Amino acid sequence: MSTITRASCLALDRADELAGFRARFALPEDRIYLDGNSLGAMPRVASEVAQDVVARQWGQGLVGSWNEAGWWQLSRRLGDKLARLVGADPGEVLVTDATGINLFKAVAAALSLRPERRVVVMEGSNFPTDNYVVQGLLETLGREYEIRFTEEEGLDAAIDADVAVVCLTQVHYRSGRLLDMRAVTAEAHAAGALTVWDLSHSTGAVVVDLNACDADFAVGCTYKYLNGGPGSPGYLFAARRHQARSGLPLRGWWGHEAPFDFARDFRPAAGVARFATGTQPIVSLALAEPGIDLALEMTPAQLRRKSLSLTSLFMELVEGRCDGLGLELVTPRAPARRGSQVALRHPQAYAVMQALIDTGVVGDFRAPDILRFGFAAPYNSHVEVWDAVDRLESLLRSEDWRAARYARRNPVT
Amino acid sequence: MSTITRASCLALDRADELAGFRARFALPEDRIYLDGNSLGAMPRVASEVAQDVVARQWGQGLVGSWNEAGWWQLSRRLGDKLARLVGADPGEVLVTDATGINLFKAVAAALSLRPERRVVVMEGSNFPTDNYVVQGLLETLGREYEIRFTEEEGLDAAIDADVAVVCLTQVHYRSGRLLDMRAVTAEAHAAGALTVWDLSHSTGAVVVDLNACDADFAVGCTYKYLNGGPGSPGYLFAARRHQARSGLPLRGWWGHEAPFDFARDFRPAAGVARFATGTQPIVSLALAEPGIDLALEMTPAQLRRKSLSLTSLFMELVEGRCDGLGLELVTPRAPARRGSQVALRHPQAYAVMQALIDTGVVGDFRAPDILRFGFAAPYNSHVEVWDAVDRLESLLRSEDWRAARYARRNPVT
Repeated sequence: MSTITRASCLALDRADELAGFRARFALPEDRIYLDGNSLGAMPRVASEVAQDVVARQWGQGLVGSWNEAGWWQLSRRLGDKLARLVGADPGEVLVTDATGINLFKAVAAALSLRPERRVVVMEGSNFPTDNYVVQGLLETLGREYEIRFTEEEGLDAAIDADVAVVCLTQVHYRSGRLLDMRAVTAEAHAAGALTVWDLSHSTGAVVVDLNACDADFAVGCTYKYLNGGPGSPGYLFAARRHQARSGLPLRGWWGHEAPFDFARDFRPAAGVARFATGTQPIVSLALAEPGIDLALEMTPAQLRRKSLSLTSLFMELVEGRCDGLGLELVTPRAPARRGSQVALRHPQAYAVMQALIDTGVVGDFRAPDILRFGFAAPYNSHVEVWDAVDRLESLLRSEDWRAARYARRNPVT
Repeated sequence: MSTITRASCLALDRADELAGFRARFALPEDRIYLDGNSLGAMPRVASEVAQDVVARQWGQGLVGSWNEAGWWQLSRRLGDKLARLVGADPGEVLVTDATGINLFKAVAAALSLRPERRVVVMEGSNFPTDNYVVQGLLETLGREYEIRFTEEEGLDAAIDADVAVVCLTQVHYRSGRLLDMRAVTAEAHAAGALTVWDLSHSTGAVVVDLNACDADFAVGCTYKYLNGGPGSPGYLFAARRHQARSGLPLRGWWGHEAPFDFARDFRPAAGVARFATGTQPIVSLALAEPGIDLALEMTPAQLRRKSLSLTSLFMELVEGRCDGLGLELVTPRAPARRGSQVALRHPQAYAVMQALIDTGVVGDFRAPDILRFGFAAPYNSHVEVWDAVDRLESLLRSEDWRAARYARRNPVT
């Protein structure tokens, strides 16, 4: 048995250098929220930001706010901030559009830089939007493009001289597995291919250093570990060396060299701005800023250290206390091999998660058999991890999850 | 000279059946806002909606709000509401993504239904995003697709048996000219082509009856006459008869038949949901609802009647009072030929508009020489029109607009 106690978890919290950040988030009193990898918690200031953007900037400033409130510059300004979180330079990141839309742009751009090649390498088990986006793009392109689906263990073999683009999600949405961005990027480049990284489960959770890894393109979301609010816009990174030559399938007046000329023909803006499309959802975009600002108050190393402390504790407690209760650890144990979530397999994962949520511990379920727990360094505590595992153990021992009310209904559609 | 007086304008307002709606909007006391065709005014309730969505649904409900607050259904629920404003049926409209992204989807879908044809007819003077979007799409498709640019007077000649898609903005963003959707659609169909209508300047302003016109596809925005807030999501209409066979270049898990299966391969959802992409900006999306609800409290005929009353008054007053002051009416006079804005040409339009805004009358400038005034039936009044023209006349007579501070600076970028 583990020697960890609730008191020792409280001691870890007292020593936690990020402990002060929890008070900056609005968290419901009655729940332990371990689903920040799906939707991050609300920075308290977001409520005031919403009022300011809606009631003052829109309601009173009206159209003048495009200039006076800086709406027009918001995608680039937030992009420059976010760049500091992912090892990019100013002028390499835009916060804009949805993650999948940005993925379409990024993969198309990368393909345009490898015009003689026809293969995109992806993980078949990736978050499905990524696969659907690339399937749609390749069908649109025609010309015998294809996806070479593989899984992590097949990556080496899949990356060969036919490959134009290696398009991977660094932290796997189900297993929480972390890929070595530097090694895979080097391997892709050695084969003459480019990389597109989906950092949706990385940004704000693990140390990302795009330019140190010589990454080509990346996309990510701001509503998970960056706490930007439901469906807040995604982002796109395009390495400066690729910007001027990249194909641009999705265009709009915000990406034009002289948008207020209202010229008939498209001429791309300088720099990353060319990847912008049309008018952005300003309220959702503005609400992404408080979470980015909060993340910038910590160093990536601090975030990562705390994240690993939480996830390690969770795994150790689960292994120590839930042995023989039907759980299987899916997430790799090695810190270098995992992000900030822990996935557990259980044959009745849906029912177990529904019942666990009723005890006040919020994780989520991913079909067919995964219990997923996300740990957010800025607001989760070690004692929450203790209490969550305590309730999970009790639930599994009591078998309360077998109640009819937890049986799987039809998925929400 | 006109016999209109300020008192007769006030009398028109007293008789206005929509006059009560003005109090439902937050409007700055010190300005006459005639730019709702760029960014609509804020419905007062939007401020409370923002607080509810942000502080309660996100802050307290967290990930549970995807079901409990109906976020997951929002695009379709708002689409069904908006359908009633544009003569579409339930299940034919989604409120989602940006207008230009939806245009990409709509034109690609229409092209996929006319696989043997290679020409898209567009107006070269259209709002540029539309041209840029289609230019980007056709370059992505390759295969010798081309845009046949024309203007309104050349439409008849341009629509021939080579044309796959006629893609037009019904109300022109500069001139305010209104196209006859029924006649142009019939002409396109007679030539074997399909139509994609951009209704950005139509929705909430003129009577739109998509199915009565046998329209194929349409897109539009919610932040102009629907008062949805800055950059609130656009919408897509796909006639039911086309939905099942349309190509889908932009995909995401929200458009999948069984999104929570997280299947590797895309299988489109039934109906218009297949045109959805990925996770939407919920706060901006939710803020589109108050304006749609307000529009649904009026009939399209009421909106149109008041709109024509305001624009007719404006034109009559300008002609009566500003004769010889350098203005030229660009917008067609005939009611059937114009939307809800009036465009005036002036050789120094930029300076005149800057100076006019300083008098408290907010319109906007469109390069190179257009003064643009939008009239929103739900909140503008006849006496505002009187006062606006009064200040415009005074400004032009005084020549205050020649002051150095109004000289054109570089366009905002």
